[in-house]
Amino acid sequence: MRLSLTLFAGLLAAHTTLAAPFTDEILSQGQQLRQHAMASNRAWNLLESLTTEVGPRLPGTEADRRAVAWAKAKLNTLGFDRVYLEPVTVPHWHRGQASARITTPFPQSMVVTALGNTVGTDPAGVEAEVVAFNTLEDLKQADPEQVMGKIVFINHRMERYKDGRGYSPVVKARGRGAVEAAKKGAVAMLLRSVGTDSHRFAHTGMMRYQEGIAQIPAAALSNPDADQLERLLKRGEPVRFNLKLSSETRREQISYNVVAEITGSTHPEQVVLIGAHLDSWDEGTGALDDGAGVAIVTAAAKHIIERNLKPKRTVRVVLFAAEEIGLIGAKAYKAAHLDRLDSLYIAAEADFGAGPIYRLDSRVNEAALETMDEVARQLAPLGVERGHNHSWGGPDVSILPDEGVPVAGLSMDGSDYFDVHHTMDDTLDKVDPDALRQSSAVYTLYTWLMANAEQSLRPIPLPQE
Amino acid sequence: MRLSLTLFAGLLAAHTTLAAPFTDEILSQGQQLRQHAMASNRAWNLLESLTTEVGPRLPGTEADRRAVAWAKAKLNTLGFDRVYLEPVTVPHWHRGQASARITTPFPQSMVVTALGNTVGTDPAGVEAEVVAFNTLEDLKQADPEQVMGKIVFINHRMERYKDGRGYSPVVKARGRGAVEAAKKGAVAMLLRSVGTDSHRFAHTGMMRYQEGIAQIPAAALSNPDADQLERLLKRGEPVRFNLKLSSETRREQISYNVVAEITGSTHPEQVVLIGAHLDSWDEGTGALDDGAGVAIVTAAAKHIIERNLKPKRTVRVVLFAAEEIGLIGAKAYKAAHLDRLDSLYIAAEADFGAGPIYRLDSRVNEAALETMDEVARQLAPLGVERGHNHSWGGPDVSILPDEGVPVAGLSMDGSDYFDVHHTMDDTLDKVDPDALRQSSAVYTLYTWLMANAEQSLRPIPLPQE
Repeated sequence: MRLSLTLFAGLLAAHTTLAAPFTDEILSQGQQLRQHAMASNRAWNLLESLTTEVGPRLPGTEADRRAVAWAKAKLNTLGFDRVYLEPVTVPHWHRGQASARITTPFPQSMVVTALGNTVGTDPAGVEAEVVAFNTLEDLKQADPEQVMGKIVFINHRMERYKDGRGYSPVVKARGRGAVEAAKKGAVAMLLRSVGTDSHRFAHTGMMRYQEGIAQIPAAALSNPDADQLERLLKRGEPVRFNLKLSSETRREQISYNVVAEITGSTHPEQVVLIGAHLDSWDEGTGALDDGAGVAIVTAAAKHIIERNLKPKRTVRVVLFAAEEIGLIGAKAYKAAHLDRLDSLYIAAEADFGAGPIYRLDSRVNEAALETMDEVARQLAPLGVERGHNHSWGGPDVSILPDEGVPVAGLSMDGSDYFDVHHTMDDTLDKVDPDALRQSSAVYTLYTWLMANAEQSLRPIPLPQE
Repeated sequence: MRLSLTLFAGLLAAHTTLAAPFTDEILSQGQQLRQHAMASNRAWNLLESLTTEVGPRLPGTEADRRAVAWAKAKLNTLGFDRVYLEPVTVPHWHRGQASARITTPFPQSMVVTALGNTVGTDPAGVEAEVVAFNTLEDLKQADPEQVMGKIVFINHRMERYKDGRGYSPVVKARGRGAVEAAKKGAVAMLLRSVGTDSHRFAHTGMMRYQEGIAQIPAAALSNPDADQLERLLKRGEPVRFNLKLSSETRREQISYNVVAEITGSTHPEQVVLIGAHLDSWDEGTGALDDGAGVAIVTAAAKHIIERNLKPKRTVRVVLFAAEEIGLIGAKAYKAAHLDRLDSLYIAAEADFGAGPIYRLDSRVNEAALETMDEVARQLAPLGVERGHNHSWGGPDVSILPDEGVPVAGLSMDGSDYFDVHHTMDDTLDKVDPDALRQSSAVYTLYTWLMANAEQSLRPIPLPQE
């Protein structure tokens, strides 16, 4: 072992001198892998299997346990060197039933969904007049007298962008709206769905309570229902709304991060982590979020196995538990591996739909930019361009750069992602098989190159203040 | 009165000789009306009001009564010469709750909707193995042993066409599937939704029972759920399904055909009927089906009123009751007017969404084709072409040609119509305001011309055997 380490160090030094981030052989094998991946249905078949045989898989549920069993069994059939589970304690929030009605002046039912973590209502529902705000900020500025005893409606419309940047300004109200509403005496919080579609699907997602602030029920209206409520309010008469939720928080459960590895041939202790999250919201089958990611990274590793190639570093596929309810699996992973995080050469997560991938971002040492630039050049035939060096790497791996772990962001075209994100409409038919194949091919080539790159990527630049 | 009748007859004779179906003045006023209508938001405002202030309006419900009150009040504000109600006895089917689950081998919930008129299930649901057929015909051919004790799944996929001709081959299974399944001992019938979308909305619509055949529950699966069930069945293991419906038929109610007229200046006893149906299915707000039709024909008449024009014949807007559950209002209309149907100069109904209208079809005497050809020429600036002379006129007026009533069919582009038809997603945001405006302009000019045409349109050619 010592001999091979010395040899490897020598090779590294030699290549640094030559300023070639990859050997010709590695590049050639990478391009063959790309072609192999672009002819593969592996990712689609994995996604079809997960969404059909498991379906929705909310953390803490029986379906979540079946998802873990599915992943373990599937990874075992694929020829990885190691497949193992790492336990994660996860909250178990139960959705129950949701229903809502305008009771006056124009009675009609409304499509709502409970926000994750919300409390329920009385069986008869909570009923009150609606008071609307355009943004969370407007609610914060409001006179409490306007809000007291009412149902707050935050009517903030999400904008559509390829990179999904319309999400963050709007999602704050999902997380924080109930707390701010409760501070001013509201009895419930209704949110215009954080989504870019105009269909009667309400978009769920996590909300939070705050110690010492009343826990009021929180739900999202579908966008057409939010439009309707807006029209009703414009008529000037008081609009009364009845919201019924039977949601509740149940006992914590044990779930698992599911891990599979191809052991590195030269540096088994150095790890290229490619991740996705195995859990999903419970109303759809989690096809885009994040079955696609599971399929993309799993197929990427499998393509390397299929071609009988031996990466120098270990390739580790991590299917994280309970991302949706607060990166629970990722946090458990980080805590469990805190003393070994320097073994992570680089980490990336696929969690933004099925692609296609159009850009490679990174967070690596500036001296190693030539490595990432070369990766981008190798990915160019797949339509990928080189991006910036301040990537966050994807949700679950976003907590790793703080510990010095280099990350890459393989940016997916998310133009349509928020049409179905967190809705019951997130099903297999929404996935474009060609986009999925391209994304998996990108991950395949990326993973191969990172597992065989010559340079160290550390220390990484820290986030700018 | 006798004098003016004589004068009118003389004018008619003169114009027949000249072979001019319309006077220049009428044509000129018509083109001004077209321009007026193309600058009008009248149809949109009517549709916005109906879908917002009433919303869903299932026959026999309290919302249906509110729809009638809305229509009466609205028509009264628009300056018609007469507004009146004609009572219609309507069935009252109550949807209740619907839920469905795959119970084995891969438990997951499914999106279903009760088909109109279905019975409910036991509170625990009906649960059995699923047997699939590609078409109603395949079910009819099946060995009863294959079906006995099972849930029949009719997996017939609808095709998309501009003229909606994909509907009729598929909708037969909706109407008749439960009867054919029950004949062979099935315990329930599941239908792939009659719809062209791929969203998790199940499409409702009427189904029928037959005297002497067991009444089994009938529901539609959304298309993505039908895909999922198809994938589950392909795996080869028995798939068990649990369907719960709390639907029931309640006591008949009185609803109304709502009628508004501009009295004809010369031939008040001759009527140009333009119709739509006021009722809707209960899960959406009936924006495309058929709020749009209500708005199109009402605005068409209002445009004539707004321009202060006096049509020679009476223009009658009929907002039919209870179309969705079997042309109940239309049948009542026909029965109540059976001895006066020869007063109908021509009838047409707008009930295929918001348009645009691209073709004028008709069913008139062949000697009067030049009148309809001229109407089409006048409509050409709106993008309307001349079609055939074997029109059925639209659902509610389709029962009138049998009584000799001429009809026109103003064909709407229905390419997207069956994406939302009979779903909860049939809401105002699905309506293109420009298409709605064009359709209303077409009806405006058409109505004006028919109310002032010189030729008789009778006797009409009968349907070919």
